[in-house]
Amino acid sequence: MPANDKHKTIALAVRHNTAGIEEPVRSVIGFLEQAGYRIVLEDDTAAHLGLPGMEALSIEAIGLQADLMIVMGGDGTMLGIARQLAPFDVPLVGINQGRLGFMTDIPIERMLPALGEILGGQAFEEKRTLLEARVVRDGAVIASGLAVNDVVVARGAGAGMVELKVSVDERFMYNQRSDGLIIATPTGSTAYALSAGGPLMHPTLNGIGMVPIAPHALSNRPIVLPDSSHIVIEVVSGRDVSVNFDMQTFASLAHGDQILIQRSPDTITFLHPEGWSYYDTLREKLHWNEYPSVEGKLTKGY
Amino acid sequence: MPANDKHKTIALAVRHNTAGIEEPVRSVIGFLEQAGYRIVLEDDTAAHLGLPGMEALSIEAIGLQADLMIVMGGDGTMLGIARQLAPFDVPLVGINQGRLGFMTDIPIERMLPALGEILGGQAFEEKRTLLEARVVRDGAVIASGLAVNDVVVARGAGAGMVELKVSVDERFMYNQRSDGLIIATPTGSTAYALSAGGPLMHPTLNGIGMVPIAPHALSNRPIVLPDSSHIVIEVVSGRDVSVNFDMQTFASLAHGDQILIQRSPDTITFLHPEGWSYYDTLREKLHWNEYPSVEGKLTKGY
Amino acid sequence: MPANDKHKTIALAVRHNTAGIEEPVRSVIGFLEQAGYRIVLEDDTAAHLGLPGMEALSIEAIGLQADLMIVMGGDGTMLGIARQLAPFDVPLVGINQGRLGFMTDIPIERMLPALGEILGGQAFEEKRTLLEARVVRDGAVIASGLAVNDVVVARGAGAGMVELKVSVDERFMYNQRSDGLIIATPTGSTAYALSAGGPLMHPTLNGIGMVPIAPHALSNRPIVLPDSSHIVIEVVSGRDVSVNFDMQTFASLAHGDQILIQRSPDTITFLHPEGWSYYDTLREKLHWNEYPSVEGKLTKGY
Amino acid sequence: MPANDKHKTIALAVRHNTAGIEEPVRSVIGFLEQAGYRIVLEDDTAAHLGLPGMEALSIEAIGLQADLMIVMGGDGTMLGIARQLAPFDVPLVGINQGRLGFMTDIPIERMLPALGEILGGQAFEEKRTLLEARVVRDGAVIASGLAVNDVVVARGAGAGMVELKVSVDERFMYNQRSDGLIIATPTGSTAYALSAGGPLMHPTLNGIGMVPIAPHALSNRPIVLPDSSHIVIEVVSGRDVSVNFDMQTFASLAHGDQILIQRSPDTITFLHPEGWSYYDTLREKLHWNEYPSVEGKLTKGY
Repeated sequence: MPANDKHKTIALAVRHNTAGIEEPVRSVIGFLEQAGYRIVLEDDTAAHLGLPGMEALSIEAIGLQADLMIVMGGDGTMLGIARQLAPFDVPLVGINQGRLGFMTDIPIERMLPALGEILGGQAFEEKRTLLEARVVRDGAVIASGLAVNDVVVARGAGAGMVELKVSVDERFMYNQRSDGLIIATPTGSTAYALSAGGPLMHPTLNGIGMVPIAPHALSNRPIVLPDSSHIVIEVVSGRDVSVNFDMQTFASLAHGDQILIQRSPDTITFLHPEGWSYYDTLREKLHWNEYPSVEGKLTKGY
Repeated sequence: MPANDKHKTIALAVRHNTAGIEEPVRSVIGFLEQAGYRIVLEDDTAAHLGLPGMEALSIEAIGLQADLMIVMGGDGTMLGIARQLAPFDVPLVGINQGRLGFMTDIPIERMLPALGEILGGQAFEEKRTLLEARVVRDGAVIASGLAVNDVVVARGAGAGMVELKVSVDERFMYNQRSDGLIIATPTGSTAYALSAGGPLMHPTLNGIGMVPIAPHALSNRPIVLPDSSHIVIEVVSGRDVSVNFDMQTFASLAHGDQILIQRSPDTITFLHPEGWSYYDTLREKLHWNEYPSVEGKLTKGY
Repeated sequence: MPANDKHKTIALAVRHNTAGIEEPVRSVIGFLEQAGYRIVLEDDTAAHLGLPGMEALSIEAIGLQADLMIVMGGDGTMLGIARQLAPFDVPLVGINQGRLGFMTDIPIERMLPALGEILGGQAFEEKRTLLEARVVRDGAVIASGLAVNDVVVARGAGAGMVELKVSVDERFMYNQRSDGLIIATPTGSTAYALSAGGPLMHPTLNGIGMVPIAPHALSNRPIVLPDSSHIVIEVVSGRDVSVNFDMQTFASLAHGDQILIQRSPDTITFLHPEGWSYYDTLREKLHWNEYPSVEGKLTKGY
Repeated sequence: MPANDKHKTIALAVRHNTAGIEEPVRSVIGFLEQAGYRIVLEDDTAAHLGLPGMEALSIEAIGLQADLMIVMGGDGTMLGIARQLAPFDVPLVGINQGRLGFMTDIPIERMLPALGEILGGQAFEEKRTLLEARVVRDGAVIASGLAVNDVVVARGAGAGMVELKVSVDERFMYNQRSDGLIIATPTGSTAYALSAGGPLMHPTLNGIGMVPIAPHALSNRPIVLPDSSHIVIEVVSGRDVSVNFDMQTFASLAHGDQILIQRSPDTITFLHPEGWSYYDTLREKLHWNEYPSVEGKLTKGY
C-alpha cells in the first residue's frame, strides 16, 4: 500500500470474547475513518462486536477488496486469519492487548502511532512462508490444508507409538517411531516445534523444520530441510493417527495414507513498525534479556 | 527360592503369536520337568500355545502358588505380567527371542544354562519399584492402577495443550502446559520418559522421574524426586485428557480430576544370571559400545 | 541451635566488593548484638569491610566455635563458604542483595524478620549432600577436594574431545567421548549440570547426577545414580584435561589418571524461614510462574 | 571434469599412519594410471607414504593444476584438505578405510568401481558451503580463517562462563553466557554442533546454525539463520577465551575482540557415486535403521 494513499480499504478482525476490547476497537476505527480509509469488519467480528453501521465482509471478500488487514488479538487469532487470507495478497498488522505475540507485536498502548507510521509508509515488511499438505489414500486426495505454523502427524492419546515412513524428494529418509512428527515453517519454529525440541529458524530462512515428538530413537534429531523439499509421510502403524494444520483443522488417517507436504506458493506479509527486530521479540518472549546477578560472572555456581 | 530345592512350582508365560516359539518353550519345559519342578502355564499362554496336558493357572493363582515365573517374550510381555504379579512375591526371569530387552535379558540361545545357574542359586537378584495411582473426582476414587514403567497424563490428539497443576507433598510445584506429563520409575526411565527427554535412573535409585512431554515453557525440565514423594496432578484445562498405566490401561479425565501418585508398597524381583550388569544392558541397548574410527580422537571433525 | 538460646556465636561472611552492602551488614550486626549473640566476622570479610572493633576468625575457627553462619551475597559466595565449612556442623543462612539465589534465598528487605524467625526456632532445616573426590596417579593420591555443586572433568579449549572411561561400583559403564563429564549433587543440579542438559534433582533425593557435556554419542544421556555409588573416571585420551570442584579449585590431569568420586560423609545444613519451599525457588528462578495470554489455551499457536 | 576425459590430473592425499593403507593406495594409483590420468601426491602424503617415483605437489599447486582430488582417510583428513582447497575449484572424492564418514563415503572395498563410475561421468555432484571469519581487535584484523564445519568461540577449561554479545546483520540478538558458541555450516551440523544439541541441516539448506554450548539460560536454544547473515560475536567477559576453525586452527581472544562470521564466497564440491543419498549416510551414521523387536509396536514399554 503506497504511503498516504487515502482511498484504500482496511479490514479489521478482533478476537472474540476479549474483555475491554470495544474501546480500543472504536479508537482504531475512529483513527482510520478520520484518515479517510474505508473500514470493513471481518464478518465473525461484526457478529460478535455489535458495532452498528459498520460494513461486514467474509474473509474471502476481504481478500479481494482490502489493501490491509488489522488483527486485534493474540497469535492464535492471527494464525487463523493469516491462513485463510494467504491465497490473497493482503498484508497483515497485529495488535495485541496482552502479552506480546510473535505475530501480533504492536502493544495496544502504542497502536495509534504505530498504525500511523505503517500507513504513512514507514513499515518494515516481512514475508512468511506457508506449508501446503494433501492427504492421499488409495491414489485420491481425501484432505488438504494450508499451515502457517505447522503440519503435525500424531498418534491418539491411548495408542502407543505411531510409525511413520518419511521420504524427501523421493529419497527414503527413515521409518520413525514416536508420538508424531511436526513439519514446521520458520514461523512455526517458535510454537509447538520449539516445545518438542526443535531449533529456532529465522523468518527469512528458506527452510522447513522436521521435528519428531518424543522419538523412540534418541538419534532421531530435528532436521532442517531446504524449503524446496517435497516431503512424504506415510502412516505405517499406530492407532488413532491424525494430521492437523496449525492445530486448527484435523483429518483422521488410516494405515497406508500418505501426507504430501511442501512449501505453498502463497506467502503472508506482515507489516511491522520501523525498527522492528525479530531478535527483540525473541529476547522478550524467551526471557533472553534477564540477567543473573553479577557474581554469576565469576563462577559456575549460579 | 533356595538352591536346588526341587519340589517347587515354576510358572511360564509366553508372548502370543511369536513365530517359532513352540520349540524353545518345549525345551524349557522339558529342562524344568527333568529337574523335578512342577510347571504351570499362565492361562492365556495355555490357551494360545496348545500344549496338551499342561496345567494352567490364572495370574492370581500363580501369584499364590508359584516360586518363580519365567516370561518368554519382550519387555512389553514382561511389563504386563510384572504389573499383575506385583502384589505377590514371585521373582521373575525374562527370556527374549529377539533383540534383548531391559527386563528380558536372557537370550534364547543361552536360556538353559542361564536357568540352570539361576535355579542353582547363582542368581543376581534385583528389586524394582512400582507406582500406584488413584484418580479422584468429587472426592471419590474413580480409577486406580499400578505401573511398572510410568503413569502418563496426556492430552488427546486433536486438543491443543493440557494444563496440569502439580503438587508434591502438599507443596505447589507449578501449573504446566504441555502435551502431558510422565511420572516414571527407574525401570520406566529407559522407556517413554527417555524419548521425552528424561534422564536415565539407576534401578536402585530411590527416585521418581517427572518428565514433561513437549512443555510450553522451555524451563519445565525433567525433575527427579525422592520416591517417598506424594504427587498430585490436577487437570486444569485441555480436551480428551486421559491417564494411563504403562500405556496398557487407560482412564478418561475431566477438568478438576486429581491423580494421586506415589510409590507402591509392592516391588518386583527380577533374577538375572550372575555377572549381569545394568550398564552392559545400557551399552547394548543404547549403542554406547560403538566407536567411531580412530581419527575421531584427533579432531572434532567427526 | 535451640530456640532463644542467647549465649551463642553467630558468624558472618559478606561478598566482597558489593556496593551498598555496609548498611545492611551494620543492620544485621546491630540486630544480633541487641538480641545478645556474640558476632564474629569471617576474616576475609573483616579485612574487606573495615568495621572496626569486630572480632575476626578464620573459617576453621568459625567451624569450631560458631553455632550459625550468615552469608550475605550470592550463591557463588555461599558455595565457597559451604564447602569450607562442611567438615564442621554449622548451619548456614543465606541473605541475597540482588536476585534471589538457590542457596541465598532471603531477600535483604526481609532479612531482619526472617533472621528473627530462624533464631526463634521457626526455621525449616534442610540437609544438602556433598561429593568428595580424589585424583589417583600411579597409585598415589595427587589431589582431592570437596564439592557442593559438582566435580567436573573437562578438556581444554583447544583440544578436541576427551575420552573418559567410567566405572561405577566396579562395573564398567562406558568409554565416553565428549567435552567432559559433570558429576553433580542435587544442589548442583540447578547449576552447570542443568545447562548441560541434566535433570533437576530434589535436594532430598539420595542421588548423584552424571551429565555428559556435548557427548559425541547422542545416546550418552544424563544418568542419575544412587548416592551410595563409587564412581571412577579414568582419563583415556584428550589434551589439557583437568578436574575442578565447584569450578573453584582445579587440578591438571594426565592420561591414566583416575578420579574417584563418592558422596562425602559431611553434609551442609541450610536454615530457611518457615514456609520456605524448594518449588517456590524453582518457579522464581526458572520463570515457571509466567503465563502466556489466555488464547494460548485454545491453540498450539502460541 | 567431463566424462572420459583422459589427459587430466588427479591428486591424492592419504591419512598418515594408517596401517595397511599402502596396498589400497597402490591399487588406486594403478587403476588411475592405467586409465591414462596424471597422478600427483599431496606433498605431506608423499613424504609419509614413501612411494618412489611419484610426483608430489603442495596443496596450492594441486589447487591450480588438479581436476580432481581423492582423499583416502576419515572425515578429519578430508576436513583439513577441503578447507585448504576451497579457494580453488577442485572437486573432492572421499574413500574411507574404516567406518564410513559423512564426507568420506566410499568404502575401500568398493573404491575402484566407484572411482570408475565417478570418472566416467556418473557422479552425483554436491556443493558445500564454508564460513569465513575474521577477528577484529582495536579496528585491525588480527586473525582470520575458513571453516568447513564450524567456527567455535569457547572459554578455557578453568574459567567459568564466557559472556558473548551476538549481533546479526547489525541487529542485537543477545548477550549469551555459556561454555561457548558454535557457528556451523550444514556440513558441520553433524559434528560438534550436533553433540551440543543443534539440529541436523541438509547440505543444500542455505543456512547457518548457531548452537550455544551449555548455555546458562535454558531458552538460549539453537537457531538457524539464512546464510546471507553477517554474524558478529563480541567477547564481553570470560577467561582464556579462544576461537577455532574446524577445531584445527586457534586464536586467543581478549575482551572486546569481535569475531565477524559470514558465508565464504568459496564452496567445496564433493563427488559421490550415483545413487548416493544424504539420508542413507544419516541412517548409517546415526543408527536410524536399527529396529527394536516387533512387540515394541504394541506398547510404549520398549
